[in-house]
Amino acid sequence: MNTIGHNFRLTTFGESHGTAIGGVIDGCPSQWKLDFDFIEAELLRRRTGQSPTSSQRKEPDSIEWLSGLLDGVTLGTPIAFIVRNEDARPDNYEALKDVYRPSHADFTYEKKYGLRDWRGGGRASARTTLPVVVAGAIAKQILRGQGIQVLAKVTEMGDVEQARKEGDTVGGIVECIITRVPAGWGEPMFGKFSAELAHAMFSLPAVKGFEVGDGFALAKMKGSEANDAFIINDGKITTLTNHSGGIQGGITNGNVVVFRVAFKPIPSIAQPQQTVNRGGEPCEITIEGRHDVCALPRALVLVEALAAMVTVDMCFLR
Amino acid sequence: MNTIGHNFRLTTFGESHGTAIGGVIDGCPSQWKLDFDFIEAELLRRRTGQSPTSSQRKEPDSIEWLSGLLDGVTLGTPIAFIVRNEDARPDNYEALKDVYRPSHADFTYEKKYGLRDWRGGGRASARTTLPVVVAGAIAKQILRGQGIQVLAKVTEMGDVEQARKEGDTVGGIVECIITRVPAGWGEPMFGKFSAELAHAMFSLPAVKGFEVGDGFALAKMKGSEANDAFIINDGKITTLTNHSGGIQGGITNGNVVVFRVAFKPIPSIAQPQQTVNRGGEPCEITIEGRHDVCALPRALVLVEALAAMVTVDMCFLR
Amino acid sequence: MNTIGHNFRLTTFGESHGTAIGGVIDGCPSQWKLDFDFIEAELLRRRTGQSPTSSQRKEPDSIEWLSGLLDGVTLGTPIAFIVRNEDARPDNYEALKDVYRPSHADFTYEKKYGLRDWRGGGRASARTTLPVVVAGAIAKQILRGQGIQVLAKVTEMGDVEQARKEGDTVGGIVECIITRVPAGWGEPMFGKFSAELAHAMFSLPAVKGFEVGDGFALAKMKGSEANDAFIINDGKITTLTNHSGGIQGGITNGNVVVFRVAFKPIPSIAQPQQTVNRGGEPCEITIEGRHDVCALPRALVLVEALAAMVTVDMCFLR
Amino acid sequence: MNTIGHNFRLTTFGESHGTAIGGVIDGCPSQWKLDFDFIEAELLRRRTGQSPTSSQRKEPDSIEWLSGLLDGVTLGTPIAFIVRNEDARPDNYEALKDVYRPSHADFTYEKKYGLRDWRGGGRASARTTLPVVVAGAIAKQILRGQGIQVLAKVTEMGDVEQARKEGDTVGGIVECIITRVPAGWGEPMFGKFSAELAHAMFSLPAVKGFEVGDGFALAKMKGSEANDAFIINDGKITTLTNHSGGIQGGITNGNVVVFRVAFKPIPSIAQPQQTVNRGGEPCEITIEGRHDVCALPRALVLVEALAAMVTVDMCFLR
Repeated sequence: MNTIGHNFRLTTFGESHGTAIGGVIDGCPSQWKLDFDFIEAELLRRRTGQSPTSSQRKEPDSIEWLSGLLDGVTLGTPIAFIVRNEDARPDNYEALKDVYRPSHADFTYEKKYGLRDWRGGGRASARTTLPVVVAGAIAKQILRGQGIQVLAKVTEMGDVEQARKEGDTVGGIVECIITRVPAGWGEPMFGKFSAELAHAMFSLPAVKGFEVGDGFALAKMKGSEANDAFIINDGKITTLTNHSGGIQGGITNGNVVVFRVAFKPIPSIAQPQQTVNRGGEPCEITIEGRHDVCALPRALVLVEALAAMVTVDMCFLR
Repeated sequence: MNTIGHNFRLTTFGESHGTAIGGVIDGCPSQWKLDFDFIEAELLRRRTGQSPTSSQRKEPDSIEWLSGLLDGVTLGTPIAFIVRNEDARPDNYEALKDVYRPSHADFTYEKKYGLRDWRGGGRASARTTLPVVVAGAIAKQILRGQGIQVLAKVTEMGDVEQARKEGDTVGGIVECIITRVPAGWGEPMFGKFSAELAHAMFSLPAVKGFEVGDGFALAKMKGSEANDAFIINDGKITTLTNHSGGIQGGITNGNVVVFRVAFKPIPSIAQPQQTVNRGGEPCEITIEGRHDVCALPRALVLVEALAAMVTVDMCFLR
Repeated sequence: MNTIGHNFRLTTFGESHGTAIGGVIDGCPSQWKLDFDFIEAELLRRRTGQSPTSSQRKEPDSIEWLSGLLDGVTLGTPIAFIVRNEDARPDNYEALKDVYRPSHADFTYEKKYGLRDWRGGGRASARTTLPVVVAGAIAKQILRGQGIQVLAKVTEMGDVEQARKEGDTVGGIVECIITRVPAGWGEPMFGKFSAELAHAMFSLPAVKGFEVGDGFALAKMKGSEANDAFIINDGKITTLTNHSGGIQGGITNGNVVVFRVAFKPIPSIAQPQQTVNRGGEPCEITIEGRHDVCALPRALVLVEALAAMVTVDMCFLR
Repeated sequence: MNTIGHNFRLTTFGESHGTAIGGVIDGCPSQWKLDFDFIEAELLRRRTGQSPTSSQRKEPDSIEWLSGLLDGVTLGTPIAFIVRNEDARPDNYEALKDVYRPSHADFTYEKKYGLRDWRGGGRASARTTLPVVVAGAIAKQILRGQGIQVLAKVTEMGDVEQARKEGDTVGGIVECIITRVPAGWGEPMFGKFSAELAHAMFSLPAVKGFEVGDGFALAKMKGSEANDAFIINDGKITTLTNHSGGIQGGITNGNVVVFRVAFKPIPSIAQPQQTVNRGGEPCEITIEGRHDVCALPRALVLVEALAAMVTVDMCFLR
């Protein structure tokens, strides 16, 4: 429920304005010297992805490492870590306690659990993805040892300036590649590399679409256009084109893994919106405070993190 | 690896030209009278989805029920079933034994396992999805008891006639809705309803894209356009629009669940193609026999089946 | 629910008098030439473990291999197999349909599922352990490649002759050793080698006790008596004594793994017994037919099979 | 690996002398007001179980609740908590850094991971069971709502006074009952109630034996003695005797669940012992400091905690 992965696993916990958020990484190999600078840099990428007018809190996200390490070296036991929510100001959210913000998870959480932590999105807050960045940074280190790299970039994004003026927000598309994955990773039936990636990406808030290789564009092609001819390159079998995005039959073919993730716009807009309150009465809501206009720059490191975690997991399943 | 689901689970097995394919359904409630006619009808939908010139085998897919039933009523124990591959003609495939068909799983399976069942696609054959139809038909019956329906249709497809003449194939898009799912189903972090659907759909051969609600189109919208205002309808909270596709924060909001799946064209085309053989030498391949031009009609029942299975699983996780 | 193992997994299905019983083995390495003679021999050990006056059916247990194999070599895909219940004579059991046999699972299954397959014990029948023997035989082959052996023997058993005369049954104790397991296998906290063995053994019908090393006897010892001193033997670290049974902190120490399993007597006795029927009325029951007096000889191969499966699973988890 | 349970799950982390130990409870129902006094009382039971001359640290185990709660009420999201290791004095253990304590997990951890946290037992320390007490206390609250109680007592224990004088330690046996479990809980094949209990108990350090009902004594009985006759009592079906310990065919029969757990003596004794150091040379070790003579009083709350967790998990699996 709050755990992802099979042999390389992350369990996360925490609400946006609770005491702390954090994670437990299980299955990390022992005797690795963790690159803490890299982990901090990844967390910084997540923060600097924010727009200058972001509503995000200003304290640094300082990680407390709780277990699984001896002198910075992994013990093979679970690595637990937390980040405290020191700057939590739940008062800001008091006004939202009894009203459902449109296209947020307020209503669905309350339906599921009978109550919700209304302070800043609670468990559904974007803040709860922070542990994913930490686990992803560790996964990247493991992959780096095998020469594998994960790189995401924004390939499509709405006009931020125009949207900001209107108190509006924009979405966009992130493309990610995983280079040098050996052929043969991924499980054939219900643990396909592509299926595990899809599952991981849809764990991110605001994700509404996912495609591998040429994805939806393949639906318009003919077989003769879509097929990737095998060729010999430098004595190695590879494909002339990469419409398949490096995955065939759910298993990597040695070519670059390519996928794209569609993010809807952030639902917190400064404009008044029609909604309903907990009492079941129609009302209008205007979400106060400064808002992020676009989550995409911040999403890059998250997409990479999950892609790295899935890749390590697939590696360990072989 | 070959199991999907948590509390309602399907394990599948079988190669296209092995002795049999089949599945084991675990977690099916007891005391259900199975509607065998409906299961047969669903299997027929899978078959009649085939084009007249299909390469598919002609024997009926007659199910042998092995366990879990007493006088057609479920015992609560695992329901196992098989369908024999009676008309298997592996000789047809002898020519393909040592060559990798482009955009098939021949190469990736061999890289993963060191060998592959070269007879008709082996484990990667579309035939191995048959058990999914059976489990899906049972899941639909369970959902029917709750008034929930799952319906898929083809919304985009290439020109089949034109492609057939050229020995080519086409792909397309399937849209699926799940009606009357109560609000509150789905897990919040790593078992989101959308993530489980994505994972399930990418288990199908040829799937290369998946989107929920307005999906990729949301990436181009502004927040003010994409948000679904809450309204009261017939005394019940619902949303005015359904850009979110019935899922917010990974949890159903009571509106219709809507998603789309992109299928690439069938990779078996009648035209000569460039490839490489197992000895690592470039060669040309022409796949003999009659071919399906489009897998989409057949895919409808598979998309529905997996959607139904995921929905039951989410229901049982609550 | 009906699956055991993590990376080497068995799912079983089938009722005693249904169409067939069987299993699906997932996670078996590819490119193994299965030793079918050995598997048959193991199944024979299970049968010849029966007393001459056994109630067991007389047909050979002929396995149909359904998937996962090409010319007898494992493909890495799920290996499914079934054994048909050809000689099923449910009429024999008609008298037991409405009455709960003491210390059988009749009552508990009915309470759990609302109905039960009353024909010969249904899913709770000893017959349903047959798939375990098959999976265990394959696990043993994998271990054999690493020089690891699993050997069980009966160390305590009631007097069979005396019991037979009285229409009674006896239980006993099986001791099992696993030789040459390398040090370092087993997970530290909730996947201890000992815990996985305990779980597996309690999956067998009639098992009521399990101990590792000196087990319950250790409860009466002092630390100075119970501790295993480390010594050097042939240049290798080992222990002078093996009170721990080869497992310390849940992880193998390189010494022989030793454990014992207590089996209660078979509950089907020829004497009249007090019980209750489905209508909730007290009644007397006499179980007709010839009975096994002791299940222990038959249990040997089952204990070995599960021990082998756990050992392979622990090996694959590293 | 460090997670136990299916639908009610605990993940634990932490080394004895790391920064903190803790746990994440997933699957706890929402809208429960946690009884913190009870949780503290259970932790106190764990501590006061210690002998007056205990080596245990003196700081109170004060829990920091990190997530999953709003005003003391469960949100349905993961409940994470930590206890800091404030009084950690790793210097005390410097002498043990390079030597393997007999019958401890020093050697096996090092073989598994290539290194170990030598400070006070690291991950294998008894201290790491603290999170189990917390999760168990929450599980007990859930069971209390159904009228179910879990009660353990020491039924056999060595002579503590005599052992203390000799710098020795003793083991013993804990018996536990679970009252008022409804009939029908437990999974039939590989998730038997008894198997899940066995697995859970063997997760505790020093456990070497487990039996249900009359356990090993059943091995010496005849069927006519061991069978539990069904009777009607107060209009309800129950059994006249309870040799089976409330579990038949792996499923509860409504009678009291009874099981016993054998603990070996604590391996840390004050006497000099023969061992080997990390360099592979024989040496003698004397473990300094004050020692616990017997872990049993402390074990009571742990046995109860795990039994409660298993019972809740079986309840949620139905």
